[in-house]
Amino acid sequence: MLINVEELKEAIIKAYETGNYDFVDDPHFFDEINIPIIAKAVSSIEDWNIIKSFLTKLPIEKISLIITELDDGLVEKILKEIDIKNIVQMIAEMDEEEAAEVVDQLPDEVKEEIIQKLDPKEYSEIAEYLKYPENSAARLTTRSFLKIYPYYTVGETLEIIRRKAEIGDLPDFLNYIYIVNSDDKLVGVVSLKELVISKPYLQVKSIMTIKLVYCSALDDKEEVAKLLRDYDLLAIPVVDKDQKLIGIITHDDIIEVIFEEYSEDILKSGAVESFEEPYVQLTPFQLAFKRATWLVFLFLASSLTSNVISSFSETLEKYVQLSFFIPLLVGTGGNSGSQSSVTILRSLALNELSEKDLFYIIKKEFKVGLFLSFQIGIVAVIYVLTMGIFVLKIRWEIVPVVVISQMLIVVWATLIGSILPIIAKKLKIDPAVMSAPFIATFVDATGLIIYFTVAKLILHI
Amino acid sequence: MLINVEELKEAIIKAYETGNYDFVDDPHFFDEINIPIIAKAVSSIEDWNIIKSFLTKLPIEKISLIITELDDGLVEKILKEIDIKNIVQMIAEMDEEEAAEVVDQLPDEVKEEIIQKLDPKEYSEIAEYLKYPENSAARLTTRSFLKIYPYYTVGETLEIIRRKAEIGDLPDFLNYIYIVNSDDKLVGVVSLKELVISKPYLQVKSIMTIKLVYCSALDDKEEVAKLLRDYDLLAIPVVDKDQKLIGIITHDDIIEVIFEEYSEDILKSGAVESFEEPYVQLTPFQLAFKRATWLVFLFLASSLTSNVISSFSETLEKYVQLSFFIPLLVGTGGNSGSQSSVTILRSLALNELSEKDLFYIIKKEFKVGLFLSFQIGIVAVIYVLTMGIFVLKIRWEIVPVVVISQMLIVVWATLIGSILPIIAKKLKIDPAVMSAPFIATFVDATGLIIYFTVAKLILHI
Repeated sequence: MLINVEELKEAIIKAYETGNYDFVDDPHFFDEINIPIIAKAVSSIEDWNIIKSFLTKLPIEKISLIITELDDGLVEKILKEIDIKNIVQMIAEMDEEEAAEVVDQLPDEVKEEIIQKLDPKEYSEIAEYLKYPENSAARLTTRSFLKIYPYYTVGETLEIIRRKAEIGDLPDFLNYIYIVNSDDKLVGVVSLKELVISKPYLQVKSIMTIKLVYCSALDDKEEVAKLLRDYDLLAIPVVDKDQKLIGIITHDDIIEVIFEEYSEDILKSGAVESFEEPYVQLTPFQLAFKRATWLVFLFLASSLTSNVISSFSETLEKYVQLSFFIPLLVGTGGNSGSQSSVTILRSLALNELSEKDLFYIIKKEFKVGLFLSFQIGIVAVIYVLTMGIFVLKIRWEIVPVVVISQMLIVVWATLIGSILPIIAKKLKIDPAVMSAPFIATFVDATGLIIYFTVAKLILHI
Repeated sequence: MLINVEELKEAIIKAYETGNYDFVDDPHFFDEINIPIIAKAVSSIEDWNIIKSFLTKLPIEKISLIITELDDGLVEKILKEIDIKNIVQMIAEMDEEEAAEVVDQLPDEVKEEIIQKLDPKEYSEIAEYLKYPENSAARLTTRSFLKIYPYYTVGETLEIIRRKAEIGDLPDFLNYIYIVNSDDKLVGVVSLKELVISKPYLQVKSIMTIKLVYCSALDDKEEVAKLLRDYDLLAIPVVDKDQKLIGIITHDDIIEVIFEEYSEDILKSGAVESFEEPYVQLTPFQLAFKRATWLVFLFLASSLTSNVISSFSETLEKYVQLSFFIPLLVGTGGNSGSQSSVTILRSLALNELSEKDLFYIIKKEFKVGLFLSFQIGIVAVIYVLTMGIFVLKIRWEIVPVVVISQMLIVVWATLIGSILPIIAKKLKIDPAVMSAPFIATFVDATGLIIYFTVAKLILHI
């Protein structure tokens, strides 16, 4: 159908190498290729010079379209390269919501200068966005929608739509038309489809839906995403604290929110700081930087394990064979902890559980832990009685130590894995930071205490 | 605005306890409450008897609406309780796409009986769906959409829409109208908005978009989700192998796909088998069952660590202090492996990287691993020279063993973490199974070999 990302990428690279950008000047270029394809191709190019060179060949209004499709990290880089004059022009062409995002990402050194060059009315609209927190519904809200009054007839409304279209003032999103009262409060909604099929003389109030789903400007955008999902909506109206309609959030922004959250959570699950640049455009140093802080933190936390083992060094000197099972026991603990933590994280993400359910979860996961512990106990008995005795040649008295401590560690880790995400949520920390590496590190140290304590008790050291 | 989930849940539980279900019989009940709220409330109730009792009070056409909003696991349970006659009626009322899902989930013992009772034409439509694989675009495709020919005028098209509305034959989704040629091949698309604002005498071919985005019936549904996201679409047309238009996939189904994938990937990241029932409705035994297989598998894989350590038991007997650092070294290895694996998993999920990029990734992650190794090396030196020497009282010659092997393990784990997901993808296994627990277990055994080999070389044992 369309020229694909791979082909366009190659064309851009070739143009850079040969200096021949004729394909961009072809008047049909933008007719034949969609902006998202260009954005994807740009994202897939590793060498920043090639991207820069390609973008300078494009008209500024196309760049402003491409920018709205790119990851934040890349946008920031691009903005640094564009003339102030051109940025001002770009912002003027965007709708306020996108313009606000661009202004938000401007390099500090030019921000002031650009803001001063903007039309004051335009800037005040942008400032209106930026006063809301970054994760709020308000930041996704477009002011471009159609609102009418309840006493308008269907015919009048369609006429308004046609007149607005003629003067180029029609909102992009017109699948729903919102009905407000004289105080600008939302009272109903009607779909364009309903308008088309209704008798022209009817008043919209007689056909509008009054079972309204809406959100507040300060709502978290991830909650709005769940609302849109639950009600299969194409857009959600947003009201301010006085219940006045300030705009709408459309499906495309919501899908973006869901993908962003998804991509962030994948990274969090492995204890990596979230980033928004394409992988190919990050240098190895930058990639290492996204991981180093957590890795060092976890190293230091994990170093407690050395203290634990060293404090039991007497036991260990008498029974060196106990060390054979250290990684197995704590590793299995870490795994069962990770399992329970992701189970709880999923339910928190889907709003099935909340921090209020802490005791319910503890009770339930304790039972889950017992089942798993019993299961692993059986496997562990078989393992130590065969492999342990015959291959590793361990002493008989170690058998119960390994089995009992493995069983206790599994129950303990299952509990910890389920409690930590809830505690994080209570402390208003994203529970997703209770990632598998975090849980495993925590369980390592505590699991060792269980192991050596059981050893001391059973071996009478 | 609407009665909320919590309130409804309590009302349902109270009704069960008192036997008084008057609130359901209230004719306004369904006017005032949305189906998704009912579905959420039902999902949040733990006791299956309460759910069953509530559902039996509802008219069958409402149950069929609620069912489309519920998780698959719960739907299966509900279907087991409904009379065959009622299931047949429910299926008849659903559109084919949803009906196919229900038929697919019917308990085997009644499936045949129900299929025979269905209207043959209806069943053949359902069978048409079920012949496609579960993850294919075809399974999400609704046949309910409007298609017209290019030579129709705008006025004629609007007239068709109004006539269809009068006889109750209008598709639910009407934001786009699709234009096909005489062979039923897709040639263009026009939005309802464009129809409304265009002159009635124009032919649709003069206003339709011909830059078409579409997918094939056999495409993977997750790929379709990315397409819809990239192009900010409300629906994507689906064509068969002869390029004939067979239907459309709408935004709400796509959002469902994204949420499902998200929820599955959270579970996979902690090595839990995916499940679709609400957490509260699974018994502890069932929850344990979702985890036991992986936990036992990882236990057995991890048991190799015992063999590795035992094979170095001579070294260990001479230097018992080496055991102090086992969990720290392999734990940090596991963490850096998890970090690189999630970084690659994210890029695979976002289509930034593919399995073709294996060597590119190896080269890049090797460099990332070197940076991290250097960083951790510095921290490790400081750690063993302070805590190691003064608190753990380790012998001097152990210092370089710990530092060097930690550095090597980090590089090794980083490489492994990035390679395994790509290999999984090459083998057509979901790369997300290369979860943190899996990587950690793999790195444990191999990391120990590195540690003790370095120890033997440096300590000359």
